[in-house]
Amino acid sequence: MLTAAYAGHQTMTVLTAEPRPPGPGEVQIRVAYVGLCGTDLHVLHGAMDHRVTTPAVIGHEMSGTVAAVGAGVEGWAPGDPLTVMPLVWDGTCPACRAGHRHICQHLSFVGIDEPGALQEYWTVPADLLVPLAPGIALREAALVEPLAVAVHDVGRSGLAAGETAVVLGGGPIGMLIAAVARHQGARVLLSEPDPARRADAEAWGFETLDPRADGPDGDLAGRVDRLTDGAGADVVFEVSGAPAAVLNATAIAKVRGTVVIVAIHPRPVPVDLQRVFWRELRILGARVYEREDFTRAVQLLADGTVPASRLISRVVPLDAVAEGFASLESGQAMKVLVQVGAEA
Amino acid sequence: MLTAAYAGHQTMTVLTAEPRPPGPGEVQIRVAYVGLCGTDLHVLHGAMDHRVTTPAVIGHEMSGTVAAVGAGVEGWAPGDPLTVMPLVWDGTCPACRAGHRHICQHLSFVGIDEPGALQEYWTVPADLLVPLAPGIALREAALVEPLAVAVHDVGRSGLAAGETAVVLGGGPIGMLIAAVARHQGARVLLSEPDPARRADAEAWGFETLDPRADGPDGDLAGRVDRLTDGAGADVVFEVSGAPAAVLNATAIAKVRGTVVIVAIHPRPVPVDLQRVFWRELRILGARVYEREDFTRAVQLLADGTVPASRLISRVVPLDAVAEGFASLESGQAMKVLVQVGAEA
Ligand SMILES: [Zn+2]
Ligand SMILES: [Zn+2]
Repeated sequence: MLTAAYAGHQTMTVLTAEPRPPGPGEVQIRVAYVGLCGTDLHVLHGAMDHRVTTPAVIGHEMSGTVAAVGAGVEGWAPGDPLTVMPLVWDGTCPACRAGHRHICQHLSFVGIDEPGALQEYWTVPADLLVPLAPGIALREAALVEPLAVAVHDVGRSGLAAGETAVVLGGGPIGMLIAAVARHQGARVLLSEPDPARRADAEAWGFETLDPRADGPDGDLAGRVDRLTDGAGADVVFEVSGAPAAVLNATAIAKVRGTVVIVAIHPRPVPVDLQRVFWRELRILGARVYEREDFTRAVQLLADGTVPASRLISRVVPLDAVAEGFASLESGQAMKVLVQVGAEA
Repeated sequence: MLTAAYAGHQTMTVLTAEPRPPGPGEVQIRVAYVGLCGTDLHVLHGAMDHRVTTPAVIGHEMSGTVAAVGAGVEGWAPGDPLTVMPLVWDGTCPACRAGHRHICQHLSFVGIDEPGALQEYWTVPADLLVPLAPGIALREAALVEPLAVAVHDVGRSGLAAGETAVVLGGGPIGMLIAAVARHQGARVLLSEPDPARRADAEAWGFETLDPRADGPDGDLAGRVDRLTDGAGADVVFEVSGAPAAVLNATAIAKVRGTVVIVAIHPRPVPVDLQRVFWRELRILGARVYEREDFTRAVQLLADGTVPASRLISRVVPLDAVAEGFASLESGQAMKVLVQVGAEA
């Protein structure tokens, strides 16, 4: 079979390998689609070299069907459509014992710390499988994982119907957060400097703002003030990774409002703790997802609530994975999928 | 009567003035003691010059007795011992309407935005009065206000019995937070570079650490790790105002742990948002207090739970208020009181 692996030195390579048959408690998956995301790009850029052994088969946003079932696995049969929740926890650390297994202190992220989905047949513990609902195409199902991130982020924020949410950053996760927030009954304003991404957001029906525009057009605080009659945003999602957005986030949150940190900020960035103090703000980190977030994401795709497949900019075959990464890197693509197997 | 006022240019002046008789809904207080705090020092340093009109009678940590009662005031009679919750809200802004009047968007802080307690007779709206419980000396009662801050901070943190709290900064508020946290059944570690303050904290029975010590003695993260079997602190109170402490706070909090921002950080400071994300931390601002925090503080003093009077380093007469500020400024004093009237 073919596999796509990170070979070090900013290079993806396509290799042939023998599929691994499923051991006890495992399932072998026939992979259909794999989405490429910012984390995969970080791996390609060498930022995860301390976590991977090359050649490293990566990929964790995926869809597929059961190819073969190992001993002792119940509830799964060949052909069943599925996605994977790519987290393996130890079950014994203080975080796990406190019920926060998804952010286990020794979490293994499948697709980085363990081989990922960019291979025709992928064998994983059956525990990781999430069934797809009828009516979800495998192409769209590769978006369950990022949608589960958005579901988790919105759930953690406590956003309620009738509230105002501001999303800072209109990449795929920002768009999905906006969609989930709106589905919860919130009013959503999305701030994004890229005009094409703003146009996408407007096509989805969101109000937008260009934070780099001069004058009132770019005045996020003024806009939020008007939208909320001077109260401020109930919830701000920081999805951009831009240090300036972090200062904006605290500036526009209401008294006792919430700022959710979704983006990666590799270095400490200035935060206006005076504002945090003054308005008794709440800043929450939100990382990955729990199983119920996956289940919810499957439902939201199945019932058409979130038109996630509109995020797909391009689909490339497995042997063109490097081209797919180049598209993603150019900033022109929202979501790039790798088609690994034929559509079921 | 005598009053002590901020005259601008880092100067306190003692003036004579006519006491203002209480209008309808007001009470005239015979002031007994006034505590000097960091906020008063900020005023003296000119940091609040945009908020005050000189000469400005300041002071907001106080105790006293009712001198005279205005028309329409019920429940108060001359001689009743009291303290004042020095907040005036507008009742109409979005924060007030949402139930957060103590952090009203147009909050008036009595003692800065309006005349304060450093005068022999002080007239305030009766709504601001908080009755003292029997058995609290007026000297000690001047500490109800800072203790109410501590009660508010601990309440907001959600700290539970059996949990581990780390207090960064061992000034008066840090000590009071530590005392309230311990009373809630938490284990408390207090980090403070000043040896005299550490000695005070140890005399109160708290574990301490010198964050500036070399080697394992100053290794806060290692110490917290050992104390919590590798989990991290449930709650960290940042009371120091030191930028380095903010980085320590996120480093030592457990997965889903809480960092409470109590100190003033006048400028944005670097925060490790990667850690906030990774551990799904919660950073909470906590400012002033609500009425129930005052009521609780009175109880904690009345039943002897918090030995707050041990914080009093020095008591000066009203005409020596400048000396009192000098003591406070030297960093040698924990709490300096101004004795305004004779003990009742
Ligand atoms: Zn664990
Ligand atoms: Zn208000």
